[in-house]
Amino acid sequence: MINASIITIGDELLIGQVIDTNSAFIAQEMNKAGFAIKNRIAVGDDYDDICNALNEAKKHTDIILITGGLGPTADDITKPLLCNYFGGKMILNKEVYNHIKHLFEDILKRPFTDRNKKQAEVPDVCSIVPNEIGTAPGMLFTQQIDGIEKTFISMPGVPQEMKLMVTNTVIDLLKNKYKTDFIAHRTLLTSGIGESTIADMLIDFESNLPPKISMAYLPNYGQVRLRLTATSNNEIENNTAIDLQFETLQKIMQEHLVSNTDEPMEVILGKLLQQRNETLCTAESCTGGYMAHLITSIPGSSAFYDGSVISYSYKAKEDLLQVKNETLKTYGAVSEEVVKEMAQGALKQIGTTYAIAVSGIMGPDGGMQDKPVGTVWVCVGNKENLIAQKFKFRYDRQLNIKLTAANAFDLLRKFILDKS
Amino acid sequence: MINASIITIGDELLIGQVIDTNSAFIAQEMNKAGFAIKNRIAVGDDYDDICNALNEAKKHTDIILITGGLGPTADDITKPLLCNYFGGKMILNKEVYNHIKHLFEDILKRPFTDRNKKQAEVPDVCSIVPNEIGTAPGMLFTQQIDGIEKTFISMPGVPQEMKLMVTNTVIDLLKNKYKTDFIAHRTLLTSGIGESTIADMLIDFESNLPPKISMAYLPNYGQVRLRLTATSNNEIENNTAIDLQFETLQKIMQEHLVSNTDEPMEVILGKLLQQRNETLCTAESCTGGYMAHLITSIPGSSAFYDGSVISYSYKAKEDLLQVKNETLKTYGAVSEEVVKEMAQGALKQIGTTYAIAVSGIMGPDGGMQDKPVGTVWVCVGNKENLIAQKFKFRYDRQLNIKLTAANAFDLLRKFILDKS
Repeated sequence: MINASIITIGDELLIGQVIDTNSAFIAQEMNKAGFAIKNRIAVGDDYDDICNALNEAKKHTDIILITGGLGPTADDITKPLLCNYFGGKMILNKEVYNHIKHLFEDILKRPFTDRNKKQAEVPDVCSIVPNEIGTAPGMLFTQQIDGIEKTFISMPGVPQEMKLMVTNTVIDLLKNKYKTDFIAHRTLLTSGIGESTIADMLIDFESNLPPKISMAYLPNYGQVRLRLTATSNNEIENNTAIDLQFETLQKIMQEHLVSNTDEPMEVILGKLLQQRNETLCTAESCTGGYMAHLITSIPGSSAFYDGSVISYSYKAKEDLLQVKNETLKTYGAVSEEVVKEMAQGALKQIGTTYAIAVSGIMGPDGGMQDKPVGTVWVCVGNKENLIAQKFKFRYDRQLNIKLTAANAFDLLRKFILDKS
Repeated sequence: MINASIITIGDELLIGQVIDTNSAFIAQEMNKAGFAIKNRIAVGDDYDDICNALNEAKKHTDIILITGGLGPTADDITKPLLCNYFGGKMILNKEVYNHIKHLFEDILKRPFTDRNKKQAEVPDVCSIVPNEIGTAPGMLFTQQIDGIEKTFISMPGVPQEMKLMVTNTVIDLLKNKYKTDFIAHRTLLTSGIGESTIADMLIDFESNLPPKISMAYLPNYGQVRLRLTATSNNEIENNTAIDLQFETLQKIMQEHLVSNTDEPMEVILGKLLQQRNETLCTAESCTGGYMAHLITSIPGSSAFYDGSVISYSYKAKEDLLQVKNETLKTYGAVSEEVVKEMAQGALKQIGTTYAIAVSGIMGPDGGMQDKPVGTVWVCVGNKENLIAQKFKFRYDRQLNIKLTAANAFDLLRKFILDKS
C-alpha cells in the first residue's frame, strides 16, 4: 500500500469557523485509486506549524496532499513557504498568467489587477497542476528522503477548484507514478436495529473474516452501515474474496437490510420509485424543507419527485394543504390526525403516487408536557392507504430534523415494499 | 496562550466516508474559552498511528482532546490502547455501569447486554467525564512531559454525545486547571465584491494593524467575511483594541457591508424581518427546499417564516402557485415571467409580507443553448413591487443550490433596506 497524508492549512479550520469537507473528498478519491490515507493534519496559517506538518507527514507517507493557503490575500503564506521549503525562487509562469487574465477579463468580467497577476508567480522548482476554474495554480514538488522520492501536491482550499484538480489531474498523475494495491469496499445499510445487537449477531462472522478483510460499524441517524474493506495486489482475487464475505453478511442481516449499496436513504427510496415508475411529494412542517432538499439534491430527481409544501404556519397548513381548522384546534399541529390530513392534502394538490407528511417539535423551544421536544408524527401512504407513526427523538434541533427525514424515508420505503 | 491539539480517530475519516464536524465544534468552544488549537490530526483505527499521534501532539501542546474509537464494537480500539499508553488496567466503574443500565432499560427500552456492560469498564488511571446521553464514558488522563503536566481527554465520536460533554464538563474543567489568555474575534460580512478588490482597499488598514491583531479573509458563496483576531492577557484592553480596529474596518467596507456579526445570511435576514415585524414565504423550484431548510434551521423562525412551496413539476407550479400554463409554455420554467408569477402566487397563497421565488438549472443535466447549467432567475418582493434578477453560476449542483440561496437572501435584504 502506498501511504498518503493530507495537510489542510488555514486558521479558519483551527478556530472552527469552517468545517473541513475537502479532506473527506480527497480521501475518497485517493482511496478509490488504491492509495491509503494514513493521516490528516490541519494547521493554521503559521510558518513553523506548516513546516512541522510537512516534516512529520513526509516521515510517515510517500504522498503529501496539501490544500489551502493559496489565495491572493495577505493571510495566505503557503506559496512562499513552499518555495523556501523546496529551495526554489519565485518566477512568473506564462501559462498561468494567461489563464488568470482570461478568467478575469473574459469570464468574470472583473479588472485584472496586480494582485491577480502575482498569483501567476510560482516556485521554479515545481510543476504546475492546472486550476481550470480558479486563479491559484496547483503545484507539484518532489524531495528525496532516505533514497525515496516523496511527492507533494499543493492545491487551493476552495472546494470546487480543488475537486476538479483532484479528479482531472492529481489522481491520474499519482496512478502513473505509483503502483497501487487494489482496495475494495462493500457497504450495506440496516435500519431498526442498534450497533450492539448487530455486533452480537456478527460475533462468528467477524472472527472468521480472513486477515485481509476488515469490518467497520458506521452508525448514523438511527441506521447502521456495515462496511467491509479488502486489500490485495490482485484485483480479481480481491473482489472475489470480498464479494463472498459480503454475501454472507447480507444473509445474516437479511431481516434488517435496507440496501447493499453505500447510498443515503433518499437515494435508495428514489431508485425504488423510479423502478416502479411512481412519484412522490412531501408535506413538511417540522423538517422545514429538509426532506425536499435531500431529495432534490439527487440529480434527475424531478423524474420521481414533484414538490413539497412547507407549511410552517396554521394558515399555510389550511390554505395549501386543506388541513381543517377544527382538526388543528382539536388535536394540535403535532398529531396523527393533522399529519394524515397533510398527506391527503398533498396527494390531492400535487397529484403523486405517494406522499410523506411530518409534523413535530424540533426544539429548543415549543415543547409541552404531553408533547416534549423531539415528538414527531410521520404519515406515509397513497390515496388508498395512509399509515402514521410517532417518533420521540432526544437530540438538538439539527439532529432531530435529520433523524425525522431518515426515518420518514425509511417508513415510506417499508410501506411501498409491504404493499408490493 | 495554552495550546491544544485535537485527535480524531476512525477509519471512516480516512476513507472519506464521513465528514468531520466534531473538530470544528471543539475548536470553536476551545477558542471561545481562550485556548488555541495548534493542530488537528485524524488517524485510523490503527494502534501505531494512534500512538504516533498522541506522541506528536503532546510534544507541541499541553491539552490533547481525542474523539472517536469508543463504541461497543470490535473496530474500536481506543480504550484498551489508552489504558496501555497510560499504564493502567481496566476496572468496572460502578457509576458508569448504573448510567448505562438506566439508559438501556429505562430510556432506550432495549436489553442491557454483556457488550453494553463492558462499556462500563475503564482504565483505573483515568477520571470519568460523564456521557449524559450515551454509553461510552469520557476519560481524562494526565502525563508529565519534561516537568509539565499534559492533559488528555478522550470522548466518543458521536457528535451529540461529544458536544454535551464539551459544553457541560470539559471546558469548565480546563478553565479551572489552566490560566488562559483572552482571545477576541470580530467578523463582518460583505457582499457584491471579490477578495482581491477588498484586499486592495485594505492595504493601508492591514499594514497599520497592531502586532497582536490579525486579519483573515473568508470567501464563501460569493460573499467575503473579514475576521479580526486579537489576543491579550488583559480582557478589557483586548476588547478595546479590537473594537477600535473593527470600527475602522466597517467604515472602509461600508458600501459593501451586510452585517458586523458572524452570522449566515439567512439569520441576518431573519433578524431584519423580526425587527420590522414582517414575514416571509418562499417558492422554490431549483433550490428544492434548501432555502426553507436554511431558514427553518433557525430556532424560532416560525415568528417570521410561514412556509414554502417547492414546485418541482409544472403541475405543482400551476396548482399550488397559480403560475399560468401559458407563461410556462411561452417563456419556459426558468424565466423572469415565471419567477414573478411564482412570487405572486406564493404571496397570495401564504399571505406574508415578502416572498422569494427561484427557478433555475442546477445541473449536471438540463442545460440548454440559451440557458446553460447555472442559469437562475430570482424574484423578491411584496404585493406592491417585485424585482427579478438573473444569475449565472459556474459550479456543480450542490454549490449552485447554495449560491442561489445566499444570493436570493441578499437580494431580498437589499430590497427591504432600499424601500425602507
